[in-house]
This record gives sequence, structure tokens and C-alpha cells, in this order.
Amino acid sequence: MAQWTSAIGASQLARLLAPQRAAGSAGGPGGTRRVPAYRALADGVRLLVLEGRIPVATRLPAERELAAALAVSRTTVAAAYESLRADGFLASRRGAGSWTALPAGNPLPSGGLEPLPPEAAGTMIDLGCAALPAPEPWLTRAFQGALADLPPYAHTHGDYPAGLPALRQALADRYTARGVPTMPEQIMITTGAMGAVAAIRGLFVPRGERVAVEHPSYANVLQLLREAGARLVPVAMGEGLSGWDLPAWRRVLRDAAPRMAYVIADYHNPTGALADEEQRRELVAAARAAGTVLVADETMSGLDLDAVPGERPPRPVAAFDPGGSTVVTVGSASKAIWAGLRIGWVRAAPETIRSLVAARVYADLGSPVLEQLAVAWLLTGGGGSGGENGWDRAMAVRRERARENREALVEAVRRHLPDWEFTVPRGGLTLWVRTGGLSGSRIAEAGERLGVRVPSGPRFGVDGAFEGYVRLPFTVSGPVATEAATRLAAAARLVLTGRSAGADTPRSFVA
Amino acid sequence: MAQWTSAIGASQLARLLAPQRAAGSAGGPGGTRRVPAYRALADGVRLLVLEGRIPVATRLPAERELAAALAVSRTTVAAAYESLRADGFLASRRGAGSWTALPAGNPLPSGGLEPLPPEAAGTMIDLGCAALPAPEPWLTRAFQGALADLPPYAHTHGDYPAGLPALRQALADRYTARGVPTMPEQIMITTGAMGAVAAIRGLFVPRGERVAVEHPSYANVLQLLREAGARLVPVAMGEGLSGWDLPAWRRVLRDAAPRMAYVIADYHNPTGALADEEQRRELVAAARAAGTVLVADETMSGLDLDAVPGERPPRPVAAFDPGGSTVVTVGSASKAIWAGLRIGWVRAAPETIRSLVAARVYADLGSPVLEQLAVAWLLTGGGGSGGENGWDRAMAVRRERARENREALVEAVRRHLPDWEFTVPRGGLTLWVRTGGLSGSRIAEAGERLGVRVPSGPRFGVDGAFEGYVRLPFTVSGPVATEAATRLAAAARLVLTGRSAGADTPRSFVA
Repeated sequence: MAQWTSAIGASQLARLLAPQRAAGSAGGPGGTRRVPAYRALADGVRLLVLEGRIPVATRLPAERELAAALAVSRTTVAAAYESLRADGFLASRRGAGSWTALPAGNPLPSGGLEPLPPEAAGTMIDLGCAALPAPEPWLTRAFQGALADLPPYAHTHGDYPAGLPALRQALADRYTARGVPTMPEQIMITTGAMGAVAAIRGLFVPRGERVAVEHPSYANVLQLLREAGARLVPVAMGEGLSGWDLPAWRRVLRDAAPRMAYVIADYHNPTGALADEEQRRELVAAARAAGTVLVADETMSGLDLDAVPGERPPRPVAAFDPGGSTVVTVGSASKAIWAGLRIGWVRAAPETIRSLVAARVYADLGSPVLEQLAVAWLLTGGGGSGGENGWDRAMAVRRERARENREALVEAVRRHLPDWEFTVPRGGLTLWVRTGGLSGSRIAEAGERLGVRVPSGPRFGVDGAFEGYVRLPFTVSGPVATEAATRLAAAARLVLTGRSAGADTPRSFVA
Repeated sequence: MAQWTSAIGASQLARLLAPQRAAGSAGGPGGTRRVPAYRALADGVRLLVLEGRIPVATRLPAERELAAALAVSRTTVAAAYESLRADGFLASRRGAGSWTALPAGNPLPSGGLEPLPPEAAGTMIDLGCAALPAPEPWLTRAFQGALADLPPYAHTHGDYPAGLPALRQALADRYTARGVPTMPEQIMITTGAMGAVAAIRGLFVPRGERVAVEHPSYANVLQLLREAGARLVPVAMGEGLSGWDLPAWRRVLRDAAPRMAYVIADYHNPTGALADEEQRRELVAAARAAGTVLVADETMSGLDLDAVPGERPPRPVAAFDPGGSTVVTVGSASKAIWAGLRIGWVRAAPETIRSLVAARVYADLGSPVLEQLAVAWLLTGGGGSGGENGWDRAMAVRRERARENREALVEAVRRHLPDWEFTVPRGGLTLWVRTGGLSGSRIAEAGERLGVRVPSGPRFGVDGAFEGYVRLPFTVSGPVATEAATRLAAAARLVLTGRSAGADTPRSFVA
């Protein structure tokens, strides 16, 4: 990288470093050895870069400013920067400052919840990405069905900025059946749920404006919003699975009047909480009163792992928005069918969809046609039997798989990491785990070296919160879950004994 | 839309309106009738919104400021805004100002070169989108081959942020065969060429920084760069097909030192010019000297419509960058195979690719797996025979089709619009046409109502340039091309007689 493209201020960097610094100075169980201050600082920055919490090509503050913000000497900062440069984590040029970099040959691809390439799966257990294998045979059958439907589309230019009419209709019908009357004009097909959130952000949130988010929330969306210049306003989730603190939400929406709020009411990522209908109703009412667009991400919808026969899930958030102008819904086939499809969608008022479609040509133009046909095939009865369509049958396979994985994970963590705490959610794909006082960032780094990839808590937080957490997904089965827990336990021991991060420094975390 | 998300300044809006205002006041062949000034202003803003040159939800300047910038009375601006509000093109709220909107039921989806939904093709001839139907049977065969290759991938989570290893390898091999030795680590698969340009912009160009572009250039990329806050520095293309004015490029790169330059050296869009090897060499050298990243968009590469057997196309731009750190190449399967695939790629230095991949999780996570397998299948010999792989054979089908379409278009325009001027390019998919002194924007609007969609010249320019042009693509065959030219001739007559745009106003264009 020849130059920097964004910058981080001294006070912001100090805030990101604070939890780690607290951990270092507090000592903790392994905190008997001391490391030079410059080394601790370099380690801290390196962790933030490796985790993608400081993007590559970000200019760091001038030495003098950072020294002031951290209340250390300028020599300490200069030595830390020099050490980072020597390791390839920093590049500098006279007059242009210093900016973050990734050293060549670094085994970490870095970034947010970036999945490990499956070809590396032989050596690394990837718990970074909460996505399951495809629910075969439904994926292959859906593609075969799609291929049979392709010929008339192959005669066109193939660009459908709003999505294929057949899929927009099928999704509208599905919303209508779930209690939210919907027309095809209210649906736009996107490139996954991330493409949907990016488009909505672009329409509603100018740079520098506020967006309210659950705290914790989905790491990649938090980062997407940050990179788009949004100011995140975190609203704490309740303990365990209690979820949405309505008085806090009402207060934040009233006082901060954010342009947009982003919520995952259906098996929240990462905590697994499920909003009941009363919470949904009140969230929508509070957003409407504040003039805030409420984005409801339904990616995990349908992953009811403990539903008993006849139990009805809560109605969609949009069902509590009769005017139709407050709630914008985001959906995806990634969790329901397969992330390799890259099909998501937005449901909103027709005028909002029109504006989103108009803006789309400057982003990705459209979504892949065959994938759209495959999803439409599943939704409109392909692969169905006994009153269920192929989508529902594929979802049933997914739920069964996720349920088994969840049991295996919970048992393995309880056995190998008895002091890690969590509440088992009734659905979704993630377990939000308190790591017994150890730093989640250090565990993530040690895990990388021991063959298990986990995302640390701060990725799901604002300004370094949740240092004492990791997120574990329901994506691996019995023996792999056991091996993963074993490796995590080894990583925890490394952190506890201060031998993580390649430096002689204590790594316990005291919140 | 409840609020605005971006704003346009009074002087910027005045600049966008200038060519139209010049046309109105100059009179011209049909310029005998007069319309009220407020109506002319409202018409001008409406055209800019309909064309997507002012995005939806853009706040317009305060009446007083715009009046000053245009040297008209505030009453005129107030009346124009009121007229726009009445037509649904403007929304206002006390204290928040006025922002652009699209009226409900508007038949125009607006936006840049947004394709018309193919279901509307019965009534509208779509010349907006330079994309061809799929080169069957190769698309279907490729998908069948991909389905056979799918099973091992269906067992994975399906997220490959850098792209499938098989496709990265196949593309690297293809570059190597074209004279640019390339490793798979130098390739990232993206969601079309637009996804590639967006990712590169995000890595190299902070908001407010300069990007040099050919003038004219590809409309959607210009708009993407604008929306990302880049300052466009236009470098005029030479007359006809002479293309790149190297002294001008050297001057701009040296004086403006832009972070990035975006060029289409292989059948430039929209002019169809092809850079020779000397021009490529000098462009790269000038960019290197200025420290500018040179993005070479090869989307049209291979569309050599007039190549004689044995003729070798110029080597890729990257072949003239031995250091490998100046040129970043963008490619796509959209023109070569089918836009419905949504597969593009970046070729760059390994460290650049690593940084792009790290940032990708905050954008679209990855590209569809089956589409990647289909492209890899074609590139690695699937569907091949006689020394050609399926990709080459599909390209041959495309070229033949594009060549026939080009002949039909050229003949139809020459017959029905004898005073329209153009130079026929030897490749690519577009004809850049001077519209005989008429306003391209007005022709586009009139064409919309007469059943032919064409993008007007200013979409390909900066600040309203190229008002006297339209772009026509090689996408329709004989009888349709004739019908399209007939409708365009009717649109031109409407404009000439001042009956376009729904208002009694002269519409000739005097540059």
C-alpha cells in the first residue's frame, strides 16, 4: 500500500486500546512478568490490525499526539511504531505519516468475520463464520430446477436491478403468508443481507449521522456502518437472553434521534435472543415516534431450534408497522439455504424500493440470475411435499443440523472450559460466551496459532467493548466441536500463563 | 423518503443546468416559443433527476442561494420548486429543506444505465444497457459443468472472500498466457466489475481525494466514484477514435497527483477507442511517476470485432508495469459471457489483494459459488475443442453477434438520422454519437415516451459535459435496430419542434 486511505485519531485509538491496557496493568493470574511499555503498545496495535478493528491503510496518529492521549512518553510511542514497522504492520513515508499494513505471508487474512478458505479446513477449525454447509440434496435440486427455468432469461441481457419478478413475487407471497401483506413492488433482491444493509444505509444515512445498534451486534454490519462514516449509538442488550431494554431504546431514540436503527429481533447475532411481539411493537412505536428508520435483519428467521409442534414464532417486525414507512426488513438465503448463493433482499415501502433500485447501478448492478431462480424454485413449491415447499424442507434440514451442532458445542465447552459462561439460546446459530475473565482478543490470537479460529467479543461492540467475550457458532458437529473446545482450552491456558501474542506479557482480562 | 441524505451546492447545480440553459436561450431551429423561466428551471431539474445525475434524496440549495447562482429572481426558484413538488420530484419539510424524489408510478426507474426489466421489452427497446443475451449453448453447458463440480463445495460454508481457488488459478493462468505472469494470490473474485472498482476505490481513495478519468468515461463508474466522495479530474479523449492524449495525461497526473486513475484501454466505453501498446506504456509510466494507482478496466477486452486472423491484440496494460505496483486490473465475465453471472475480478500485487480481501467482509462477503465454478469450467477447457476452451468459443459467439448488431445499428442510424455523427469502432459494444446539435438529454426523455431508451451524453461526463451526445450499444439485431432508429428519429423531431419534455420550450442544443 503506497498511501493511507483513512485515519484514526489519538483519542479513538486510545479508547480501542483501553481494555487491553487495563488487562495488562491489572496483572491477573499470569500477570507477574513485566514487558516494556513500547512492546505492550505495539502488541495492542498489532492485535487491533489483525482483528480488522483498525482497517489496513489507516493512518495512525502522530507520535506526539498518541503519547499525550495515552499518557506515555513520546519515546515509547516511537519505539512501538518502529517495532510495528519492523514486523510489517506499519508503513511510513516522510511527510505522509505512518499507516497500518499487513505483513506479507501473514497467515491471517484479517478483517471482520472473514471465513477461512475451506481448503485450509484440514488444519484449522473455523468458528469464525456462522454459516452451515448446504442442506443437500435441496441445493443441487434447486439449481437443477433453476437450470430448467433459465432459457427465457438467457435470451435477455441478464441485468435485473430490482431482482427477477418471479423471486420478488415468491418472497412477497411468503411475507403475506406470514401476516405481512406484501406486493412484489415492495421487494428488491440484493447481494446477500450485507448488500441490503449497505443499500439501505446509503439511502437513509448521510456520513456523520447517527445509527442506533444493539450492543453487542453483528460485527460485519457494525464495521460496514463505521466505514460508511456513521456514528454508532450502542444500546445495551439485557443480560442472558432478556434482549431489548425498551426504556433504554425509547430514551436513545428520543434523545439521539438517529437516522436509522439496526436490530436483529429474530435470534439476535451474537446473543441468540428472540424479541417477543410486545418488544417488537414497542420498538417500532419508539422508532416511528423518533422518525427513525428501523432496519430489521431477519437473516436468522426460521432457525427456531427448540420450537414445539404448533408453536407460532413471533410475527415479523414489519407486522407492527401498519403505516409501512418505519420498518425496512432485510432477509437472506444465506442462513436458510446456503451462504454460497449470495442472495438477500429488502422489503420496504414501494417508494423506498424504487429509490434503492435507482441507486443500485452504482453499486453491484444486480444479483446472479441462476441463484435467484434457484431460490424462487424452492419458494414456489419445487422440492416440496406434504404441504411444505422446498425452502421449508431445506430449513428443516438446517434446523436439525444446527440443533445437533449446538448440543455438541455446549457439551464440549462445558466439559473443557468449565468457567466459561453462556446462556443457551432457543434458536439462531451463535453462542455468546463470557471467557472467564480472559481477554477474548488474546484467546482469538492464541487460537489462530493452535488451529481454531474464533471471533473475539470486541468485534461485536463499539469502542472496544466486550473484551471478555468470544462468539461460537453452531457450525461443527460432535468430534470437531470437542477438538475445537480442546484447542480453545489450550489457547486459554496460553493466555493465562502470559505466553500468547508472541510476547512476554500478561494477558488476563479484568473488566 | 423522509429525509435527505446528500446535498448539492448552488454552484454545482448551476453548472449541471448550464448546458440546458444555454440551449434554451440560444433558441435554435425550434426556438421561437418562450416558456416562463420557472418552468424551464423545473424542467431542467426534473431531467437531471430522471437521468439519475442528481440522486434521489439529494437536498437542493436554498431558494435564495440558487437564485443567486443562476442570476434569476428568488420568485422564479420558488415557483420552480413548487412545480417540482406538485409533480412529486421534490419533497420538503419545514426546517429540513427540500430534497429530490421520484414520483410514485413514474415509469422511469431512473438511475444511471439501469437496465429496463426484460418483461417490458415488448413495448420498449432498451438501448440503455450495453449487455448481450447469453451465448448459448455455452452458458447452460457451463452451469451443467459447474453443477457436476459443486458437491465438494456444498459441504463447505460457501463463503470465499477471495474467490474459489480454482477460478483464481484459471484467471491467473489466462493472464500468464496473455503475457502477464500472474499467481493466483494476485486475483480476487468480485461481484462484477463494479464490485471490483468499488473495492479498489475503497482501498486507495479517501473521500475528497482526486481520481483522474477519461472524458467521457463509463457512466456507472463515474457515479460510483462521485458517490464515494471522489473529486473527478477529467482528461479529454481525442476526437474520433484517437483516444488518449498523452501530453494531457502526463500534465494532469503530474499537476493533480490523483490517488487513482481509471482507464478503459480496451475498447473504451463509450467511444470504442483502443489504446495501442505505446499509449499503454506511456500511461503506466506517467502514473508511476505521479504515484498514481492506474486502474485498467478490461471488461471489453476480447471484443475485437474487426480483428483479422493472426492479428494480435495489444498486450494488457499490466504488461507495461514490471514492478507490479502501479497497475490494478479489473475484469469481468459480464461482457464476455453474460451479465446475469455477476462475476468480476481484480488482478493486482499480492499485498493489494490481501488488503482488498480483508475489507471485503464489510461489503458483500463473497461471490456466488456456482457462477464461479461455471466461469472456471469454461476457462479450464470445459466446452472446448480445437485448441479453444469454452470461454474462447463463447467469446467468438459474442463477437459474431456484436459485429452483426453493429452493422445493423450503423446502417439504421445513417439512414434515419443522417445528420448524427460517429466513428465506427473496431471493437467493444458501444457507438458514441453526436446528435446533430440536439440535446442528448431531451432526446433521451422523448425517446422514453416513444419506446426507445438511450443514455444521454452527460451521463458519461463530468459537470454536464457531452450534452450533444447519446450512446448506442451493439445489443439489438437488424429489424429492432431499424425500429429503434425510427423511434429515435421521431424523438429528435419532437425535440427539434420543441414539443419534448412535456413543456413548450425549445430544446435545441448549441454547444
